[in-house]
Amino acid sequence: MKKFAMYALLVVFLSAPVVIGANSQISEDTQTCIDCHASFHPGIVADWKKGRMANITPAEALKKTKLERRISVGKVPDGLVNVVVGCAECHTMNPGEHQDTFEHNGYYIHIVVTPRDCASCHPAEVGQYGKNLMSHAYGNLQNNPLYRDLVDSVNGTQSFADMKTTYKPPDVKTDADSCFYCHGTIVQVKGMRTRETEEGEMSFPVLSGWPNHGVGRINPDGSRGSCAACHSRHRFSIEMARRPYTCSECHKGPDVPAYKVYAVSKHGNIYASIGRAWNFDAVPWTVGKDFTAPTCATCHVSLVISEDGDVIAKRTHQMNDRIPWRILGLIYAHPHPKSPDTTIIKNRAGLPLPTELTGEPVAKYLIDVMEQEKREKTMQGVCLSCHSQTWVDGHFARLENTIKTTNKMTLTATKILLTAWDKDSIFNEAIEKKWVEQWLFYASSCRFASAMAGADYGAFANGRWHMSKNIQEMIDWLEFKLEQTPGK
Amino acid sequence: MKKFAMYALLVVFLSAPVVIGANSQISEDTQTCIDCHASFHPGIVADWKKGRMANITPAEALKKTKLERRISVGKVPDGLVNVVVGCAECHTMNPGEHQDTFEHNGYYIHIVVTPRDCASCHPAEVGQYGKNLMSHAYGNLQNNPLYRDLVDSVNGTQSFADMKTTYKPPDVKTDADSCFYCHGTIVQVKGMRTRETEEGEMSFPVLSGWPNHGVGRINPDGSRGSCAACHSRHRFSIEMARRPYTCSECHKGPDVPAYKVYAVSKHGNIYASIGRAWNFDAVPWTVGKDFTAPTCATCHVSLVISEDGDVIAKRTHQMNDRIPWRILGLIYAHPHPKSPDTTIIKNRAGLPLPTELTGEPVAKYLIDVMEQEKREKTMQGVCLSCHSQTWVDGHFARLENTIKTTNKMTLTATKILLTAWDKDSIFNEAIEKKWVEQWLFYASSCRFASAMAGADYGAFANGRWHMSKNIQEMIDWLEFKLEQTPGK
Amino acid sequence: MKKFAMYALLVVFLSAPVVIGANSQISEDTQTCIDCHASFHPGIVADWKKGRMANITPAEALKKTKLERRISVGKVPDGLVNVVVGCAECHTMNPGEHQDTFEHNGYYIHIVVTPRDCASCHPAEVGQYGKNLMSHAYGNLQNNPLYRDLVDSVNGTQSFADMKTTYKPPDVKTDADSCFYCHGTIVQVKGMRTRETEEGEMSFPVLSGWPNHGVGRINPDGSRGSCAACHSRHRFSIEMARRPYTCSECHKGPDVPAYKVYAVSKHGNIYASIGRAWNFDAVPWTVGKDFTAPTCATCHVSLVISEDGDVIAKRTHQMNDRIPWRILGLIYAHPHPKSPDTTIIKNRAGLPLPTELTGEPVAKYLIDVMEQEKREKTMQGVCLSCHSQTWVDGHFARLENTIKTTNKMTLTATKILLTAWDKDSIFNEAIEKKWVEQWLFYASSCRFASAMAGADYGAFANGRWHMSKNIQEMIDWLEFKLEQTPGK
Repeated sequence: MKKFAMYALLVVFLSAPVVIGANSQISEDTQTCIDCHASFHPGIVADWKKGRMANITPAEALKKTKLERRISVGKVPDGLVNVVVGCAECHTMNPGEHQDTFEHNGYYIHIVVTPRDCASCHPAEVGQYGKNLMSHAYGNLQNNPLYRDLVDSVNGTQSFADMKTTYKPPDVKTDADSCFYCHGTIVQVKGMRTRETEEGEMSFPVLSGWPNHGVGRINPDGSRGSCAACHSRHRFSIEMARRPYTCSECHKGPDVPAYKVYAVSKHGNIYASIGRAWNFDAVPWTVGKDFTAPTCATCHVSLVISEDGDVIAKRTHQMNDRIPWRILGLIYAHPHPKSPDTTIIKNRAGLPLPTELTGEPVAKYLIDVMEQEKREKTMQGVCLSCHSQTWVDGHFARLENTIKTTNKMTLTATKILLTAWDKDSIFNEAIEKKWVEQWLFYASSCRFASAMAGADYGAFANGRWHMSKNIQEMIDWLEFKLEQTPGK
Repeated sequence: MKKFAMYALLVVFLSAPVVIGANSQISEDTQTCIDCHASFHPGIVADWKKGRMANITPAEALKKTKLERRISVGKVPDGLVNVVVGCAECHTMNPGEHQDTFEHNGYYIHIVVTPRDCASCHPAEVGQYGKNLMSHAYGNLQNNPLYRDLVDSVNGTQSFADMKTTYKPPDVKTDADSCFYCHGTIVQVKGMRTRETEEGEMSFPVLSGWPNHGVGRINPDGSRGSCAACHSRHRFSIEMARRPYTCSECHKGPDVPAYKVYAVSKHGNIYASIGRAWNFDAVPWTVGKDFTAPTCATCHVSLVISEDGDVIAKRTHQMNDRIPWRILGLIYAHPHPKSPDTTIIKNRAGLPLPTELTGEPVAKYLIDVMEQEKREKTMQGVCLSCHSQTWVDGHFARLENTIKTTNKMTLTATKILLTAWDKDSIFNEAIEKKWVEQWLFYASSCRFASAMAGADYGAFANGRWHMSKNIQEMIDWLEFKLEQTPGK
Repeated sequence: MKKFAMYALLVVFLSAPVVIGANSQISEDTQTCIDCHASFHPGIVADWKKGRMANITPAEALKKTKLERRISVGKVPDGLVNVVVGCAECHTMNPGEHQDTFEHNGYYIHIVVTPRDCASCHPAEVGQYGKNLMSHAYGNLQNNPLYRDLVDSVNGTQSFADMKTTYKPPDVKTDADSCFYCHGTIVQVKGMRTRETEEGEMSFPVLSGWPNHGVGRINPDGSRGSCAACHSRHRFSIEMARRPYTCSECHKGPDVPAYKVYAVSKHGNIYASIGRAWNFDAVPWTVGKDFTAPTCATCHVSLVISEDGDVIAKRTHQMNDRIPWRILGLIYAHPHPKSPDTTIIKNRAGLPLPTELTGEPVAKYLIDVMEQEKREKTMQGVCLSCHSQTWVDGHFARLENTIKTTNKMTLTATKILLTAWDKDSIFNEAIEKKWVEQWLFYASSCRFASAMAGADYGAFANGRWHMSKNIQEMIDWLEFKLEQTPGK
């Protein structure tokens, strides 16, 4: 794939740009793309044209003040600086690194645009994102044997004969359409395929794991993630990334009910009721002026300032630098892992878990109390924009209490489970599935409800009621099974 | 009911219209309606006035180009052509055919406006709708003995005595407030009732199954359906029918979670995040210009064109001409039925089902592979507006795979069930209800999640997790029951 | 706390107001607050500035016609009449009555603004709200021994040892973050705390049960409720209170799924599809002109008029004067209680319930049929704005039928329960939790679905399907337990 020279493309970039407005100049290459694709895929082109990248050149972007700037690179490569960011700019970037580069009407293009490509103009954001657990979402699931076992138990198929079910592991298409839709697939070139098109016969790469825009996608250039997970193609708008619906694509189910909790919180109510007048496009984002209640992005990602111009929170694509606890996805809530790669974690029992099965955190891999306090302070900075310290202290005291009580309720469920466990997979029997629901659904929901002040979801919707009921049902199951097995 | 002459009404229509604006002329009859009803039911009248039907005459509508036209009739009856479409135009239409016509202040009006009435101006849409399964939603449920048994088990009441429950079939009011709210009721005149009104004593028909706007309503003129199910009274706007909330009235529950899947899809996110700037009223509907991501209607119903004016998809109220598979509501996913009347279907075992209990499709009643491919191509035409063929192929390959794996998981559940089945109703015991959930809720949810790329709903929300857990619980139930019955 | 004189504050109020616009004059005291807090908590101040209270003085408000008026007081106290309602006006109101009043930079302020404070300008609304069950939401839960037992079973923690679980009652933080988040906490001063601030060392009250804005909050001045539950701080807009998202903060879970039912109703669809053009700020609220389908507030609270100026419904913060039945939260639906304080209710068996365990209403504490009819008529007045009497009659007949059938299904579940009940807590065993779900979730959901015409939620989502399945599972549980206990 390195058979073509990088400079060949640079030459292309240096060709004269086409002027489409006072401030936006489309490169000749991009114009060539548009000439055909505006007719074949009119929706994409139209969407792109409405976006900022189609209407501003990096040179103009660099003239903005530091706080207003959306690109973080100091100097944009010459060929890119005076044209808007169009088809060719992204889909021909870094061709030597892209396993999926192919020849298409005289251009060497790739289908899968990656964070490494985006880093040409947004290196700070891509760098931060590398420290975000989400960038490792593929490996943290696939390469953790315990979690891979969970995936198999969910996505695999079962057969029934002689009063027994047997599991068959899932095929890759099912995985890609289930867990890895959000976690990200591995996208690899599996050959080329020739097919008839409106422009005659053409060849295209055959990609495994495609389509996908999961947050931890393993890309054909070896990079991780997809910026389009949140900055949806082909407008790539900051507005969309700031809307809660973007997060809800992956954070709405019972395993990560962040959106559902937000929706019943006062914040979510204010957003839904009067947010239509807010400015979701402003950079920096000014509390009180641009919005009067947070969306997900406000607390977790955005550069937020006051009307006086004070920086309330710096932009972060690492996200966990505002998060002291990990409250979801693991058996017990625990201090946030140090490394975004959690496959390195092992507990004393040798399990790939950040806590023991009985809840004690494996300190070595987790941030310490001082780092937790620092992160909590950063998050509270956002809260204090609208709330007094008394209010904020009361809120966080409840969250810490909920972490304790939900961990306790998970421990109870785990003790019941361990009484019944037959030491094979911990995910296939009915009681094991109930145990998983105890922490993956119910305990975690209670914590989200506390963390984001959406109590309704943590009471009867999928929280304390179910956490408590589930334990009774686990006990009943155990009694029934012990009855069946007199020897036990 | 045919005691009055059709021409009597035509005479009325020919009377001089009242001018309310340059382009909209209200008939004298409609003005008479409004004179009272604007005061008695101000909300309806105001709603109607904001709609297109109140502001354009059929004559003007016919001047539009074919693609822009919203009416499909070639020639509108003389009496209707130069007045806007108001109260009298619809509520006195086809009086001889309406069992519910009654005399009201000198007019022969009917309460229930039907697709046959709407066909006066929209015959193509009503004709297409007749081929849509939804137009037979009443009979397909009510007259299929197996499904009627399911309805009874859901809507009926149970009593408890001597450690046994006994079922009592549901009353008609409950049916009308549950399944038949969406499927449609039978609306029939059961007599007349006189009551005191603000205008003195008046008589009105007593209607069974009223109110209702279900998609398969059996109307007093013998026609099927209600256009107002989607084009809500009294604005009847195309905008509303194109908004996903309209579909969600009936397609949000766990049996048909289309809306919930859409909401967590990228499409749903784009709609929710930036759709407020789109034009939902344009005919034809131009991809990229009027909208940049589909709603339900875009893929399933609407006339969609490109900015170049190419027709991407023709308008269809049949809908299934874009749908190769039926993925919901039946035990197994299968090629779409040929006839919208599914009561004609019988499998080899004599059951009114399009597949055997073990999953094999009953080919005779179902479309063949060629027709499936044709329909898939039609649907893909819409996808290709924004996605490459590579993307689309990958997407549809996953859907077909999901159809296979979910059918397999349903077969497993069915085998467990058949081990336990005592040959009475297949819907009343707990294990039977679990079996129903396997296909009606979980397998179907996985397929929707694949079909509409809303993976989050098919993983933990109500999909693969539950499909897998349910099988374990069915096994446990079976073991418990066998234990109780040592003879078995 | 009464060490300072009331007149000291009045003097402050009489000081010269600061003019910020033609019609809005900020008091000097409020300006002093803003001078610091606009910088410390910019979001609150900005939010307040966008609201009506920041932009109109009571004197101006009193010039409006009676129907247009948003304040119900005849004469506003002198000090308040010519300044807009700002920080100082509310947070220094009634200082002698506030246990939480403290000295802050020379002012005697309180943190918790209460309905009694709001009553200075809105006495009618506060008076009505006192008759609303919601104002007693704290006591009706906390001081009803049966309900307190339910709360304990939900919020308490469980331990497991020797094949048994033991319950531990919940801590106050958990209660505050679960049930009492909506029901309201008791807010009391537990001392003072000194801490470092940007302005040096300062002292603040330590408040128990804080933060909270529950509808039945017990305030430091002894009053009940929080107007900010619906009129969210610090804009306090009528628009927000009229949006359904506000109600959904507490009425979305399976115990009170009003919002979910609304969302799938035709009304909810119309609101979501075309409501963006409506006027949510108009007082009075004109049907047809300002909106064409109801939100929660329209039917339950708002002053609604016709375009002719006729009053369709008077504003009520009592709400239950439009509600004949209580359909949620209790074992059986029953005529609405007479008193908002339901702790006075005892049934014949001595239980604190408005019905016997077998469903018969305890008439003494409940409104009679005449009062029910009166309330139903009031509600129907709103319906008739857009629906004919025939339609409305059909709708309400179904609701009454649903009340009957769901009560019957609850009775069946209760009979099964009573067969198994061991006379200790009625909420801790698995079958007892299923029994609770029968009425608290499923029967109630069916009734909401009938009452608000959102059938989809009452069929498969969380209604009749589950009500019926639950009974089978209760029976199975009972059989299993009887098997385990051969003596029984």
